[in-house]
Amino acid sequence: MNKIITVSREFGSGGRELGKRLADALEIPCYDHEIIEMIADHHGFDKNYVAHISEKDIRAAYPLTIGHRFTPAPLVINMSVQVAVTQQKIIKQFANQGSCVIVGRCADVILCEMHPMNLFVYADQPSKLSRCAQRMPEGENLSPSELLRKMRQIDKDRAAYRGLFTDISWGQKEGYHLCINTSGHEIKSLIPPLAEYVSQWFTKNTV
Amino acid sequence: MNKIITVSREFGSGGRELGKRLADALEIPCYDHEIIEMIADHHGFDKNYVAHISEKDIRAAYPLTIGHRFTPAPLVINMSVQVAVTQQKIIKQFANQGSCVIVGRCADVILCEMHPMNLFVYADQPSKLSRCAQRMPEGENLSPSELLRKMRQIDKDRAAYRGLFTDISWGQKEGYHLCINTSGHEIKSLIPPLAEYVSQWFTKNTV
Repeated sequence: MNKIITVSREFGSGGRELGKRLADALEIPCYDHEIIEMIADHHGFDKNYVAHISEKDIRAAYPLTIGHRFTPAPLVINMSVQVAVTQQKIIKQFANQGSCVIVGRCADVILCEMHPMNLFVYADQPSKLSRCAQRMPEGENLSPSELLRKMRQIDKDRAAYRGLFTDISWGQKEGYHLCINTSGHEIKSLIPPLAEYVSQWFTKNTV
Repeated sequence: MNKIITVSREFGSGGRELGKRLADALEIPCYDHEIIEMIADHHGFDKNYVAHISEKDIRAAYPLTIGHRFTPAPLVINMSVQVAVTQQKIIKQFANQGSCVIVGRCADVILCEMHPMNLFVYADQPSKLSRCAQRMPEGENLSPSELLRKMRQIDKDRAAYRGLFTDISWGQKEGYHLCINTSGHEIKSLIPPLAEYVSQWFTKNTV
């Protein structure tokens, strides 16, 4: 049985790192929003292209560290319908190829017919600010208040993007199977039991 | 280090069962709202009494099965301040005695200075209705709509009771460290990885 795991997250909560590490623990690929956006922007939707690339190929061509993307997220209202549709197709293609973790891009809603397990990752404000400050790229010297403004704007954009697909609000726990508060904890340490929980969730012991 | 775990839950989500099974897996006692209410009603707050009873003594005197309490919850607005204060003292006394799971009674807020790990257990409506219908006591034949009304009333009472202690709403994920959606799953099957997660959460690997 394919395990499709989606990760939605607040900016600075470590959700992207969690998705990547969880995928590593489960030995399945992780596709994050940067990968999906990059393919959509550079290649459009070419089923053959998407089917024949691996997560590793993409990362080799476009190295990403576990951290944040600090370049400003495009305002979702400016995203063309064509790009959004292309991203959806890419997400579905990845999910059809087998078990995977998909971070962001409303994959939980886009893939709902495939019954993914949907995680939401969040944290309190001091933890998020601290995580962002630690991982701020060189040359970007935001003050705490500028960082806070940026965090809020990115989360607002994510919520608005989700609003294009569903009425269930971004971050509303009813839309997820597990909501994980990472405040004050290293993501790495939470992964082994989380991977066990996810594996158990996919076994056939439903009521 | 003491592990204090609190469980808040929607009626019918299996939160009480989850708390009991989690405590068994961690080999620590579980105190649920029935135990706390029973002591408060029958004994008031007697530090010596509370310190010298074990969860097993209470269960021997007042057997509880893993299930629901279907007798109507008292409307919280009718709970005397004296009883609420007594319950709080009993909860603190239990937590001071060592690691334990406490289900309900706003233990997460009452014990916040002891840094408990706070879980919230929830489920979708069909799952909750199905669980309640399966466990309805003999002689109680509620129709689905009556059951739904009862479920909603009990959750409303829980939210109102919480409102006496804190501004963070009942069920708002920010107030909890892990929110667990049990829809369509056997509680029993989720316990082993959950117990691992909880144990890991208490280890010293904070950031």
